[in-house]
Amino acid sequence: MVQANPDEAASLEWKAIAKPQPATGEALVRVRFAGVNRADTLQAQGHYPPPQGVTDVMGLEVTGVIEDPNGATKPDGTPWEKDEHVAALLSGGGYATHVVVPHGQLLPIPDGFSLAEAASIIEVACTVWSNLTDVAGMKAGDRVLLHGGGGGIGTFATQYATTIGADVAVTAGSQAKLDVCKRYGATTLINYKEQDFAEELKPLGGADIILDIIGAKYLDSNVKALAKDGRLVIIGMQGGVKGELNIGRLLSKRGSIHATGLRYRDIADKARIVAGTQRDIWPLLANGTITHHIDRTMPVEKAAEAHKALLNGEVTGKIVLEVG
Amino acid sequence: MVQANPDEAASLEWKAIAKPQPATGEALVRVRFAGVNRADTLQAQGHYPPPQGVTDVMGLEVTGVIEDPNGATKPDGTPWEKDEHVAALLSGGGYATHVVVPHGQLLPIPDGFSLAEAASIIEVACTVWSNLTDVAGMKAGDRVLLHGGGGGIGTFATQYATTIGADVAVTAGSQAKLDVCKRYGATTLINYKEQDFAEELKPLGGADIILDIIGAKYLDSNVKALAKDGRLVIIGMQGGVKGELNIGRLLSKRGSIHATGLRYRDIADKARIVAGTQRDIWPLLANGTITHHIDRTMPVEKAAEAHKALLNGEVTGKIVLEVG
Repeated sequence: MVQANPDEAASLEWKAIAKPQPATGEALVRVRFAGVNRADTLQAQGHYPPPQGVTDVMGLEVTGVIEDPNGATKPDGTPWEKDEHVAALLSGGGYATHVVVPHGQLLPIPDGFSLAEAASIIEVACTVWSNLTDVAGMKAGDRVLLHGGGGGIGTFATQYATTIGADVAVTAGSQAKLDVCKRYGATTLINYKEQDFAEELKPLGGADIILDIIGAKYLDSNVKALAKDGRLVIIGMQGGVKGELNIGRLLSKRGSIHATGLRYRDIADKARIVAGTQRDIWPLLANGTITHHIDRTMPVEKAAEAHKALLNGEVTGKIVLEVG
Repeated sequence: MVQANPDEAASLEWKAIAKPQPATGEALVRVRFAGVNRADTLQAQGHYPPPQGVTDVMGLEVTGVIEDPNGATKPDGTPWEKDEHVAALLSGGGYATHVVVPHGQLLPIPDGFSLAEAASIIEVACTVWSNLTDVAGMKAGDRVLLHGGGGGIGTFATQYATTIGADVAVTAGSQAKLDVCKRYGATTLINYKEQDFAEELKPLGGADIILDIIGAKYLDSNVKALAKDGRLVIIGMQGGVKGELNIGRLLSKRGSIHATGLRYRDIADKARIVAGTQRDIWPLLANGTITHHIDRTMPVEKAAEAHKALLNGEVTGKIVLEVG
């Protein structure tokens, strides 16, 4: 599935291309399900090109069957076997019948998960782990502010953070969404249409960690909302690219600002993140501590429709594409 | 020595005050030498108040003699003894005959150092260690950009970074200062009056770490000058407080911005920094790898003159005040 015309989200084209050949250090996976991410819609619009050397076929996470392990081993040293079920974090190439995957980006299917369910949690789990645990060093007792608390990342991050023992504050745009956040464990619920989140956080002493998808529009308020030694982690810029930073305020808190992403990391870094995610999050999926909702499953040929549904805000949870 | 009138740097007043009494966890030190820092001149101008609960007597680093160890032990567990020579990192109170020091902020005098020499390196050593090693995680092979390379922090940081195996780039405002930087080990020499440092760093792939004392004025260029996964550490705002941050550019590099300081940290954090500094930097002072220059020694009663000399740019190296 490649994007045929960036001006038209519906122009995604499902066409025959050469089957990818695994290079050294890569396995060949026959795809069964591919998760749909907001990043895919950005790529379809021409805003999020694949890293150099990566296929322009879209898709950042899949589950499927190992067709050729090509020497891949699991973190415990045992080999991946042909025909084994597998999940994979990708730099691209997931909306396809076959994809090549660097060995370090292969994961087992979490216990009790179907292939469809598993395809919906790889990207979000690695994103949440890499930002909250790896970048921000989240620990018990931290206050974590999540913007877009009702979204896919927000609900996943809320469950993970509360399990670690953090207090979760969220922003969302409706009481219905805040109710969802509360059900997942958030204790401070802020309607950004009616409340100033920095003011709401002030009596609580601010946030040790803020996970932000807004960018410029929230920059000043985010710095205001930080606690001493607080860390603002920006992973999206839905509210613009350039904003004024009050360095004096940041300095008075010894705060830090991190802007991160998963896709352009090198394979060693991705392998480290995948391993950390498997270690810290996979057991929480297997034992039901973290749940994640699939909105619908659609055939991969309808990827353009899936993107439209996501962009139109019709989706609560994840869309998963089925291949073959 | 207290500041009598913030509008007049020369109004520093040396007067009799009650001898400080060590509380639990504090030792009493009879001061022999106190280092003069730019931060002291800021405090004298009313811009850098002591943390809550700390004396308004100025002075952030001293050497002297233990008058009452009050149970203090060294990192190796042996007790500090009465009359032992000692160095101390302070939150305030150094321009005085006596000062109380939290146990974790006591340090031995580096081997081969006089008390006067040692009084000149405590604050700079802890600042450099906490920012380059603790905050930025400097390691061999990193490229480190130091603004104000010819200053006290710049020359110290250059020697420390090159010893660790980092490549050091510096900015300074004259060829004479750049020559000094080169002598201390800097390999990329940038005259900020004639060159754009971000442009100069570009062909080198950018800086993994930038230690910045300028703030707003350099914010955009600093982000431009970062390498992938680069860390900008801001410890001063000589160029202003508010600046525009291009979050998109920061995100494209997965960069981070840290604004830090030593003085307002809690005593556990300071003890950790002092211990790290003693472990990593004290041996480099003792064996002559890092040298530091005292410009002049003056009697503590002339602290106001010392501040004026520093503010007038008449000083190359450190002024140390002698007490008694």
